[in-house]
Amino acid sequence: MSLQDPIEYEQASPIVRAIYDDIMATRRTNWVNNFWKVLAHHPDNLQRIWSNIKLVMGNGALDPLTKEMIYVAVSITNNCGYCIASHSAGARAKGMTEEQFGELLAVIGLANETNRLAVGYGVPIDEAFKLK
Amino acid sequence: MSLQDPIEYEQASPIVRAIYDDIMATRRTNWVNNFWKVLAHHPDNLQRIWSNIKLVMGNGALDPLTKEMIYVAVSITNNCGYCIASHSAGARAKGMTEEQFGELLAVIGLANETNRLAVGYGVPIDEAFKLK
Amino acid sequence: MSLQDPIEYEQASPIVRAIYDDIMATRRTNWVNNFWKVLAHHPDNLQRIWSNIKLVMGNGALDPLTKEMIYVAVSITNNCGYCIASHSAGARAKGMTEEQFGELLAVIGLANETNRLAVGYGVPIDEAFKLK
Amino acid sequence: MSLQDPIEYEQASPIVRAIYDDIMATRRTNWVNNFWKVLAHHPDNLQRIWSNIKLVMGNGALDPLTKEMIYVAVSITNNCGYCIASHSAGARAKGMTEEQFGELLAVIGLANETNRLAVGYGVPIDEAFKLK
Amino acid sequence: MSLQDPIEYEQASPIVRAIYDDIMATRRTNWVNNFWKVLAHHPDNLQRIWSNIKLVMGNGALDPLTKEMIYVAVSITNNCGYCIASHSAGARAKGMTEEQFGELLAVIGLANETNRLAVGYGVPIDEAFKLK
Amino acid sequence: MSLQDPIEYEQASPIVRAIYDDIMATRRTNWVNNFWKVLAHHPDNLQRIWSNIKLVMGNGALDPLTKEMIYVAVSITNNCGYCIASHSAGARAKGMTEEQFGELLAVIGLANETNRLAVGYGVPIDEAFKLK
Repeated sequence: MSLQDPIEYEQASPIVRAIYDDIMATRRTNWVNNFWKVLAHHPDNLQRIWSNIKLVMGNGALDPLTKEMIYVAVSITNNCGYCIASHSAGARAKGMTEEQFGELLAVIGLANETNRLAVGYGVPIDEAFKLK
Repeated sequence: MSLQDPIEYEQASPIVRAIYDDIMATRRTNWVNNFWKVLAHHPDNLQRIWSNIKLVMGNGALDPLTKEMIYVAVSITNNCGYCIASHSAGARAKGMTEEQFGELLAVIGLANETNRLAVGYGVPIDEAFKLK
Repeated sequence: MSLQDPIEYEQASPIVRAIYDDIMATRRTNWVNNFWKVLAHHPDNLQRIWSNIKLVMGNGALDPLTKEMIYVAVSITNNCGYCIASHSAGARAKGMTEEQFGELLAVIGLANETNRLAVGYGVPIDEAFKLK
Repeated sequence: MSLQDPIEYEQASPIVRAIYDDIMATRRTNWVNNFWKVLAHHPDNLQRIWSNIKLVMGNGALDPLTKEMIYVAVSITNNCGYCIASHSAGARAKGMTEEQFGELLAVIGLANETNRLAVGYGVPIDEAFKLK
Repeated sequence: MSLQDPIEYEQASPIVRAIYDDIMATRRTNWVNNFWKVLAHHPDNLQRIWSNIKLVMGNGALDPLTKEMIYVAVSITNNCGYCIASHSAGARAKGMTEEQFGELLAVIGLANETNRLAVGYGVPIDEAFKLK
Repeated sequence: MSLQDPIEYEQASPIVRAIYDDIMATRRTNWVNNFWKVLAHHPDNLQRIWSNIKLVMGNGALDPLTKEMIYVAVSITNNCGYCIASHSAGARAKGMTEEQFGELLAVIGLANETNRLAVGYGVPIDEAFKLK
């Protein structure tokens, strides 16, 4: 179900085009994916979210592939189909192998299981796990 | 709130003790954290979950630190206090720096935000993101 | 994926028809949306939920548009496609502008992000926020 | 459970102090709540999130009280204790009455119920709810 | 964290007392648990929710113990500490054994795991699972 | 959206075929549903999850129909379309009637509502609900 049609480059206002241009330049690609083209219905949201993504997802103390896999972990846990597809593609583009994808899903699945066991049993936090 | 008291080594049945021994040997530690000591009320659960953790969390195509950070991402998204505390401690023990923890939280937070935007706007999946 | 076909007015039992009639009269419309037509497979659920909606969603200390937007916020956070579509339509019908929809999504997205930061950092509740 | 101690103004670096100052000036208060004092462990996160909050939560097409109630709706659905406490306090400070709080909780609760019924029954989206 | 103090029988208005009386009569007990005593701050919510619980949780096509265990499954998945405690107690009071509780947690945990695997892999629904 | 095509028996490796054979023998059917055929892309996941399902979902202190309904409750709460379809089918195959399905959905819905009320009001846990 698509609630709002993507706004293509040709239809876009100058402000939106400038952000599309920055997305393509930053990513060294010649296309913009639908997430941004739908956010473009509200340029404030488009501008704000793109600016956050640039700040958070670039190289830093964690490498971009690790960040994409963390994104996939959150997206699967939240059941966001679009996000799973786009960030899995992003992770593959950054080098994730099929074997790594299999292990990623295994960790995500098992974490979701043990999260509920810890909650269901009401396990008390060990002293050793508390920060000093 | 603790629903069930942890079962200490001294009180444990031989079957439970054998699993505690395996946990300590595998992790090269001399203590067992509360998660296992509470699961011990149902040895079938203790046995099954420990066996899964051994299969999934060891070295493989992904390194153990990356796996711990994925675990933290799922646990924060699910709001499991025990799991956040234990797997953050696990990640620190495997070398996660404070700067990496800060970036990990930034990615988790932003992914939770954009997940809802993709869902709320009903963004259609780009052809380029579909597997062939 | 539709699990159960909607039950149309013509096929409906007298009990179900009476509820459909009440839905249309209350909403001053001449049609019933699929949610009710699927719940009609279990008239007890249809009756109970419709009676709750009438009690909760009418005019009160909060106006109906605000209530619809709160409904959208919950539905996006829970990722319920049907509910997002129907309550967004409801909010638009009650006067929500495109600009308001954009701000609504911005708040929902940001709240989902900061929720995870508060949980991930384990922020202690300020004394000033506790009710006396 | 607090994972990291709040950083008080006196202990804070000049960069962090400048953000605390901006928070207090923007909100016309003389104190800073713990959320910001814990984020201060990672000044990049503190800076980025505060800048988002300023952009999103001010006056706009939606009034600040409505935005706070939407924040509460998301926070309750996600079960974030800190966020429920702080944004309920924020909504009360902006004029939310006890009666409005009661209706807010009623809408949140009922939306969570009907979300699951729509999902469980797999209700198909009505044509009338699709955007043109 | 308690946001609002429970309202005790002695302090309660006649309308609230009448509902407390009905709760105790229906359950054949001489006390009322905190959930109702906190909802009593908004008698409309108290009245509406109690009326729903009476309709849904009594004997029917499913027995009350099975219903309590389903309640526990939802509450653990949603991470509601109060609800886990109260409905686990309810299930034990209706005869749930320790062994059954262990199996209940095993099913809840595993379902949470496989839910994410199905979502993460994007498994297409088999024709055989679609209703005719 | 299917991310990965199911692997049919004819295309499958001997290891995968052996698991398919075991699934069919255990379930006394002559087909394998898509969940397993997609997991087959990572035989470690296929093997591990099937082994967990065999351990958890068979006859025990809880009967298999009750376990399927608990699975449905978790899957609806998590919004997993595949899981709802497959485990509803599983429950029907084990004897769940339409009336029982209606009550199952009623309990799931109401639990999701009261979970949020308990969280939103911050209800303190009664002494009587704490385990000794």
